[in-house]
Amino acid sequence: MAAPDKGAKRRDGATRRQFLLGGAVAGVGAAAAIGVDYALNSPQPTDATASVPLNGEEVVPFYSAHQAGIDTDAQSHAAFIGLDLLATTDRDALRRMMRVLTDDAARLTAGESALADSEPELAVAPARLTVTFGFGPKFVSRAQGTAPAWLKPLPAFSIDQLKPEYGDGDLLLQIASDDALTVAHATRMLLKDTRSFATVRWTQRGFRRAYGSVAPGTTMRNLFGQVDGTANPSPGTPEFDRVVWSQDGWLAGGTSAVIRRTHMNLDKWDKLDRTGREQSVGRYMSNGAPLTGSTEHDEPDFDAKTSIGFPVIPEFSHMRRARSDNTAERIFRRGYNYDERPDDATVSNSGLVFVSFQADVDRQFVPVQQRLSDLDLLNEWTTPIGSAVFAIPPGCAEGGYIGETLLA
Amino acid sequence: MAAPDKGAKRRDGATRRQFLLGGAVAGVGAAAAIGVDYALNSPQPTDATASVPLNGEEVVPFYSAHQAGIDTDAQSHAAFIGLDLLATTDRDALRRMMRVLTDDAARLTAGESALADSEPELAVAPARLTVTFGFGPKFVSRAQGTAPAWLKPLPAFSIDQLKPEYGDGDLLLQIASDDALTVAHATRMLLKDTRSFATVRWTQRGFRRAYGSVAPGTTMRNLFGQVDGTANPSPGTPEFDRVVWSQDGWLAGGTSAVIRRTHMNLDKWDKLDRTGREQSVGRYMSNGAPLTGSTEHDEPDFDAKTSIGFPVIPEFSHMRRARSDNTAERIFRRGYNYDERPDDATVSNSGLVFVSFQADVDRQFVPVQQRLSDLDLLNEWTTPIGSAVFAIPPGCAEGGYIGETLLA
Repeated sequence: MAAPDKGAKRRDGATRRQFLLGGAVAGVGAAAAIGVDYALNSPQPTDATASVPLNGEEVVPFYSAHQAGIDTDAQSHAAFIGLDLLATTDRDALRRMMRVLTDDAARLTAGESALADSEPELAVAPARLTVTFGFGPKFVSRAQGTAPAWLKPLPAFSIDQLKPEYGDGDLLLQIASDDALTVAHATRMLLKDTRSFATVRWTQRGFRRAYGSVAPGTTMRNLFGQVDGTANPSPGTPEFDRVVWSQDGWLAGGTSAVIRRTHMNLDKWDKLDRTGREQSVGRYMSNGAPLTGSTEHDEPDFDAKTSIGFPVIPEFSHMRRARSDNTAERIFRRGYNYDERPDDATVSNSGLVFVSFQADVDRQFVPVQQRLSDLDLLNEWTTPIGSAVFAIPPGCAEGGYIGETLLA
Repeated sequence: MAAPDKGAKRRDGATRRQFLLGGAVAGVGAAAAIGVDYALNSPQPTDATASVPLNGEEVVPFYSAHQAGIDTDAQSHAAFIGLDLLATTDRDALRRMMRVLTDDAARLTAGESALADSEPELAVAPARLTVTFGFGPKFVSRAQGTAPAWLKPLPAFSIDQLKPEYGDGDLLLQIASDDALTVAHATRMLLKDTRSFATVRWTQRGFRRAYGSVAPGTTMRNLFGQVDGTANPSPGTPEFDRVVWSQDGWLAGGTSAVIRRTHMNLDKWDKLDRTGREQSVGRYMSNGAPLTGSTEHDEPDFDAKTSIGFPVIPEFSHMRRARSDNTAERIFRRGYNYDERPDDATVSNSGLVFVSFQADVDRQFVPVQQRLSDLDLLNEWTTPIGSAVFAIPPGCAEGGYIGETLLA
């Protein structure tokens, strides 16, 4: 029953009907492809209002030189799951597990049901679903492979208040889609594949703006309201390739992932006025422009002084501390907001699942984090409460499996 | 930086670019309206690929005879918050609180920042945001109003395993939008308004398919994969008006909300084969058609027998137990899936935030729930763990406030 969405209208005054009509061209092919579920399930209006663009049909190819979910435009929802290998999971078992996981990830991301999918109807809308696998130190050691030197817990930073329930792990699943139900279903299907081999150590879920909510390519905002991720290299550029992709051995074409759960104290942040917020970050809240510029991607001028001689971009600001003239110290961020039920009713349980990809953790990530730990005004309002590092193997061709460069 | 979404393509083979071009007609007005944030923030491509339909701009009017968020097509994300009034919150304070809440809800749902909005940039994409208020027994009593007889905890059902952290409450906020970041921001802004008057008792968050993921009007599926909500009356019909809207005193134009957190044991459900699942529900998993029909909205034939004389739709099936020939026993469901971090790593923490609206809880809801509690095969896999009942006051006109029929 197509319940009319009574009274919904766009802020510019167009009605929903006008809005839907505009999407008619895109909708025809999608409507043809949506499959048996919709065909059997819905009364099919015969006029053009049915032809909305169905983002649910969008597919990100699974088989590729690199795993998907890294250079993919960040989807609206993501689940990150860290697993511990069972003691009985040896090299052969790792290979079996990765074959099964690869096979189901390839199916699910294509909008097909998993091999033993108990709810195949939940698989019909991938909505740009990607599944990205990562390996912890124990995985590599069980695989009898050589671990990169950086594949270990990060050095302890003085700002850390790490909780073991958000740290480390042997296997990472990053499952992301523009549809939260798709993430839930894919998560469950893939975790069923791992049951004979591993147990769940931690789960973190996060969100960004919905697909279609703001213009594509808009840099995300975190729950402090900050534009977050401006300095990221752009996928498809030589800079991105240099920053992200490893050239080393079985990891060539892969990368590393650092996942840091960062609590953001929204109540304390509330007490800071707008100027204070902008000083702490070094950017305007309104559009993310550096305090010496007017648009988000203006290059900051760290030498600029105020009329009374202070730096316009304060020494303690996050942007200044995160930057380095050393071009080796670059990372690619792809984090997600979280906002969960507080255990304590008076304080919010909100923050950022910080996620960064870089070819070498020690060379690229650690120096940046060390500077931020030593002096970053944002530390007043943020606390890292979880930390994990994974090696992200390269992608594979059809017929292959993720991890084959290590396990074959 | 508009990072190219490398390789994303639709399942029907159209490229993302073709897809975006299709939305060009709808996008022009939206692009004009998106406001300063996007204008300052994003490099604006000059070709038509920028013209995606921006659902973020869609507004559901706040001021109306009924509160929004009831007959509104269910948005993708919702937060439900139950609050306890402070001992000092008297009738005058309730009026002040509802005036402030109404004012900020009206602003936020229109895509404007709240009055003391500390992150105004997060308010720009309402994405059909609605805020719906409900009153518990203590609220009505403090307001010195007459509570409807049904405004009390539901009778204890034998299937219940209620946890106090998901039950009851004096004030309900239902905050729903197609954008999870919008829900998070609106939730925080409105909870700041309540701080001098009430404390948070419980929070529940849920999701459905993303806007644009499947065709509008498609009945939701829950995490069992079931089509869930087929028998709902359609908003805008006399049947809907009869089922939902109260005619009584200060509640005229309002309704009641029953919110039942229902744990769904996915692991146990996995052990049931497809036929068993269909028997337990009385509907086909594929499209939600009754076992005596072929499409979702076919009328079930409860008298039909198999060749060996058993009912085609089993006596213990959910659909048969939920139905009644008594047309007074109808409700309007508007629930959300939840899928949270399990406390225990081995069992999923998933289920349904069951939400129903009906003019009279005792007359409409309780008999249905009693039948389901007495005999419904689905009870094998589901457990109610939270329960709350609220009176939902009518809407108000601009300049008025929600609750004025009780508090003026």
